[in-house]
Amino acid sequence: MSIKKPLILVVNDDGITAPGIKALLEVANEFAETVVVAPDKPQSGMGHAITISSTLHVRKTDVDGTPAYACSGTPVDCVKIAVNKLLPRLPDLVVSGINHGSNSSINVIYSGTMSAAVEGSLENIPSIGFSLLDHSIDADFSAAQAYARKIIQAILEQNHHKSLCLNVNIPNLPYDLILGSKVCRQAKGNWREEYDERTDPMGRTYYWLTGKFEIDDDGTDTDEWALNNGYVSIVPVQPDITDYETLNTINYLAHV
Amino acid sequence: MSIKKPLILVVNDDGITAPGIKALLEVANEFAETVVVAPDKPQSGMGHAITISSTLHVRKTDVDGTPAYACSGTPVDCVKIAVNKLLPRLPDLVVSGINHGSNSSINVIYSGTMSAAVEGSLENIPSIGFSLLDHSIDADFSAAQAYARKIIQAILEQNHHKSLCLNVNIPNLPYDLILGSKVCRQAKGNWREEYDERTDPMGRTYYWLTGKFEIDDDGTDTDEWALNNGYVSIVPVQPDITDYETLNTINYLAHV
Repeated sequence: MSIKKPLILVVNDDGITAPGIKALLEVANEFAETVVVAPDKPQSGMGHAITISSTLHVRKTDVDGTPAYACSGTPVDCVKIAVNKLLPRLPDLVVSGINHGSNSSINVIYSGTMSAAVEGSLENIPSIGFSLLDHSIDADFSAAQAYARKIIQAILEQNHHKSLCLNVNIPNLPYDLILGSKVCRQAKGNWREEYDERTDPMGRTYYWLTGKFEIDDDGTDTDEWALNNGYVSIVPVQPDITDYETLNTINYLAHV
Repeated sequence: MSIKKPLILVVNDDGITAPGIKALLEVANEFAETVVVAPDKPQSGMGHAITISSTLHVRKTDVDGTPAYACSGTPVDCVKIAVNKLLPRLPDLVVSGINHGSNSSINVIYSGTMSAAVEGSLENIPSIGFSLLDHSIDADFSAAQAYARKIIQAILEQNHHKSLCLNVNIPNLPYDLILGSKVCRQAKGNWREEYDERTDPMGRTYYWLTGKFEIDDDGTDTDEWALNNGYVSIVPVQPDITDYETLNTINYLAHV
């Protein structure tokens, strides 16, 4: 009698060739049968976008020997088509990343990495997004891998509600200098945008979005605090964006 | 001495030529100076996507005589570039829509219409997304306009916190059959996806995303209940997706 290994779906938003997804796949392979379904090109900043007005293409391939599908769509498309079309059975876990760059604070809502994880949890599969606070293509993922290993193992061992979704960010520090993990809430923060205005060779104006991230939160229970103080941040997330605080203050709108 | 009219930014996700944005602009023009900044093509289902790896183009135009900009980006890009580059001053209100189709329940997180409104509130501008439960291009927007008029007037008259954001859905009914408005929470629900698999002329497989929406919520305080019972639903929303219920149940993860 064989004990069936769990199945883990590995997804990301930086695209199927990104070093970060290989780093995450290495860890997932220690625990489970794995399948990669990831965008065929970078899809950073795609948030919860889905492809509804055009077609999706999927190309069978492999990532370092693991069965993989390169998908023409967004990170959320990858999870939907994986679960509903491509995988042999419902996965036991979805892992997304390791993202090249932070998805803490408000960045969670712009993040393709985290939207893929949220989509996994909407499909009733515990899901974890991992992000390393280093944008570079040759980032050192070893500390992030060590924490991914611990967290994946703990989640596979626990009997969590199926819609568990975690936003894990890892500071850009060597493993020995990371002080541990903190379970946190999402810090309040926002981007101050600036548009870099240029003129193309045909004389037309175009813009690049740039900006600076600003924290508007002095709590010590936030992901930003944890990351700035040498901890891995773990924020559980969920998809209900109702503003319950405001809910009872706008009843006059029901009588206009 | 002249009293300065308020300024309203009008945005959508169906694109600058959609009938729904013209219907909303008509109403906004009754109260304020208006500027339209909207996608130059349909951007439904774009969620909170932003353009970070390519350039943005903006074309000056007008919508029925109102100054307008057609933007190559997503609905969220439209709000960011409007507020930070195109508008003469910070708007007093952002209105988004009127969307051709529902954005109730979980649809709020996939919706470009609502993500534009959320982005407005992140820029500290009260923001309202309007959606009519009729996908057709020749939908009758008159009842939606009547409710948009009442709600915009009420919000302009009140001194709300600047991050107020409302998700307003209007049932597909004649005005006289709508029973009024309800202030609600987002119903729990999800899509059961199905992928329509086809073969292109070159013999390659491609997919169309289809599916069925399923409510998993029997509350009578939800947007779905309101809409199914003949009411306009008004859900206040906010961008913190921390799962506070789960937060205190996963502290063991801080010790792995």
